Amino acid sequence: MNTPTNSAETRQDRFDRGMEVLTRVDGEAGQRVVDSLADISPELAHQIVSWGFGEIYHRPGLAPRDRQLVTLGMLTALGGCKPQLDVHINAALNVGLTPEEIVEALLHSSAYCGFPKALNATFVAKKVFGERGLLPVTAD
Amino acid sequence: MNTPTNSAETRQDRFDRGMEVLTRVDGEAGQRVVDSLADISPELAHQIVSWGFGEIYHRPGLAPRDRQLVTLGMLTALGGCKPQLDVHINAALNVGLTPEEIVEALLHSSAYCGFPKALNATFVAKKVFGERGLLPVTAD
Amino acid sequence: MNTPTNSAETRQDRFDRGMEVLTRVDGEAGQRVVDSLADISPELAHQIVSWGFGEIYHRPGLAPRDRQLVTLGMLTALGGCKPQLDVHINAALNVGLTPEEIVEALLHSSAYCGFPKALNATFVAKKVFGERGLLPVTAD
Amino acid sequence: MNTPTNSAETRQDRFDRGMEVLTRVDGEAGQRVVDSLADISPELAHQIVSWGFGEIYHRPGLAPRDRQLVTLGMLTALGGCKPQLDVHINAALNVGLTPEEIVEALLHSSAYCGFPKALNATFVAKKVFGERGLLPVTAD
Amino acid sequence: MNTPTNSAETRQDRFDRGMEVLTRVDGEAGQRVVDSLADISPELAHQIVSWGFGEIYHRPGLAPRDRQLVTLGMLTALGGCKPQLDVHINAALNVGLTPEEIVEALLHSSAYCGFPKALNATFVAKKVFGERGLLPVTAD
Amino acid sequence: MNTPTNSAETRQDRFDRGMEVLTRVDGEAGQRVVDSLADISPELAHQIVSWGFGEIYHRPGLAPRDRQLVTLGMLTALGGCKPQLDVHINAALNVGLTPEEIVEALLHSSAYCGFPKALNATFVAKKVFGERGLLPVTAD
Repeated sequence: MNTPTNSAETRQDRFDRGMEVLTRVDGEAGQRVVDSLADISPELAHQIVSWGFGEIYHRPGLAPRDRQLVTLGMLTALGGCKPQLDVHINAALNVGLTPEEIVEALLHSSAYCGFPKALNATFVAKKVFGERGLLPVTAD
Repeated sequence: MNTPTNSAETRQDRFDRGMEVLTRVDGEAGQRVVDSLADISPELAHQIVSWGFGEIYHRPGLAPRDRQLVTLGMLTALGGCKPQLDVHINAALNVGLTPEEIVEALLHSSAYCGFPKALNATFVAKKVFGERGLLPVTAD
Repeated sequence: MNTPTNSAETRQDRFDRGMEVLTRVDGEAGQRVVDSLADISPELAHQIVSWGFGEIYHRPGLAPRDRQLVTLGMLTALGGCKPQLDVHINAALNVGLTPEEIVEALLHSSAYCGFPKALNATFVAKKVFGERGLLPVTAD
Repeated sequence: MNTPTNSAETRQDRFDRGMEVLTRVDGEAGQRVVDSLADISPELAHQIVSWGFGEIYHRPGLAPRDRQLVTLGMLTALGGCKPQLDVHINAALNVGLTPEEIVEALLHSSAYCGFPKALNATFVAKKVFGERGLLPVTAD
Repeated sequence: MNTPTNSAETRQDRFDRGMEVLTRVDGEAGQRVVDSLADISPELAHQIVSWGFGEIYHRPGLAPRDRQLVTLGMLTALGGCKPQLDVHINAALNVGLTPEEIVEALLHSSAYCGFPKALNATFVAKKVFGERGLLPVTAD
Repeated sequence: MNTPTNSAETRQDRFDRGMEVLTRVDGEAGQRVVDSLADISPELAHQIVSWGFGEIYHRPGLAPRDRQLVTLGMLTALGGCKPQLDVHINAALNVGLTPEEIVEALLHSSAYCGFPKALNATFVAKKVFGERGLLPVTAD
């Protein structure tokens, strides 16, 4: 069991653990989301950090790289999630996926979600890779 | 029965009734949508007003505040509906929901729609609340 | 602040709080979902209870009746969520929404989600109301 | 203008016009939907008939066959709409689309919605065509 | 059978056939999508062209005009596909749909997808029609 | 480049390559899908095999295990794809994902898609694992 079963934690303990995971995965992008919620819904920020990262992401049962593959699939399929794709394509690079693998995952998505959603996600990847000096990607 | 069953109405009667409901709920935002459709699909504007507001919204079986709660849930879940969320977060405030309740409804949505859609909707609320001088929201 | 900020809680404390909320809202249906997950994903059951109910639903910022209105909107809009609609239409009745209001909320949804999703949700309501001896509903 | 602008209509007039369109397009399936809503939401039935068919479908600006093509695309893309696809694949046949064209439209959808949704819709077509003695379809 | 069954084709043959179909349908917009993918996912561009257009769109079983009606329905229902709607509303005009028919198809979509998605698609049509000097549309 | 660029292939060559990939990944389930389409849309079966598997899945740029993680994410997020989830949870096991990892991926999905879609996918996993004698799963 990865989360403490018997030991008691405060709300702050849980936030701190989540923030540590979030920073490792998303770098500064995580902090920016927290900051942007400060005046509208600090509780949403708290729950994303404490629960999304401190509770779910923190679990050891699936490697961080694997979690990003699942997440890329979900965000591509949901549609309308460009800001989150931006964060998670960065995260995918941070946890060891190569640009070539990310591009291939999005090509793969076209068979399950269709070309429009695959295209939308690929253009977010183009933006992120451009910002990180990773273009052009030469997939083959 | 809230809509006239036996008495006859003209197309214009129905539009007028809808416009009255729309203005009460959405204020000027409703008129702006009608205007923006004038050169492309005046019939879509007519149907939103006459049917959406004059026929459906006008029914007494559910309070306006309740209708906005259902609508916030739907627009958050659908995704890709930022302009409509903008109109309806304004409408929610107009019919008596507090900023704190709206923020809480969107936090609640994260359990059913996931964080990406909850975040997207919350950032629309941030924009609307900012325009109306309602920031910061202090939910707790 | 509704959730304890300073006092420490164990994992079991959080589950117990959630189970108390879940039972109040969903009655036996909540326990059935927990039981049905026991051999496949007890952790998913734990998180639905502890986080979904003990952490989110438990918050005082939005009345239970209001949470169900938002939830009915979301589940109708998402589509493909018949089992969850079944649970939450029951929950909606449990927290004080009348059959007439639920039916009206689903009629309202047709303007935002279209008739197919409104129909699918309405037929789940028909099943639930039938099981609880609440048919026919006479909305007007 | 296809809908009467100046002349007044009663609620019943509008229902009657819709029922006439619905019967022409959907045959008995339309009546079955109306009947199945009688004890839960007769108003939803009324609005589908009066507005969906009497007001929207009735408009002359798009041929019935064209409307079914758009509708098949929407229902396939939305997902989770098997009962409505069943009705509208029948309707598509009723207004002149051939089984080969319907199958081709669903194959075409795979490029925009992905294979899972294309498959789900195609299996509904298989059921409908089987009931009408139209199998096998030989598309080429 | 519209695609060669017995004769062998190279990868380049397939791309060339698709590019010919794509140019006929989408004009320069198709080439722009291909160009914009050159540094991030040339393989996605290749597959859209070779398979989407050379293999699927190229099939004779459904007229190009019919394919655009299905496609407009899908893109409207999916949501979040503005760039693709832009391309395909242009394509719809290119293969013979009139502005009036396109506007009517999007009005029709409101009954199946709800007003928010119908509005989003209609505003893309407004942009495209404006660029092509086709406003105002007088649907009735 | 993994697909032959210069050498010519027949339509049958491409189908054979896809069938070989499909059988390796999905076992008999792939053949069953092909068979079930025989009388309604053999061309859809052909394209799923030739293009989905022979062209996309066959590419070496992403490991089969990684492709299944992306696919599980997409099918969970799309919703309404139980038959495809059934096939791909089997496929996930076939290419080396453990039951524990699959369950963890679906738990992870709850943060991005919400609990209803995570639950729906988890119950498909329960069915598949039950059929393969893999219950109970003890994730921790």
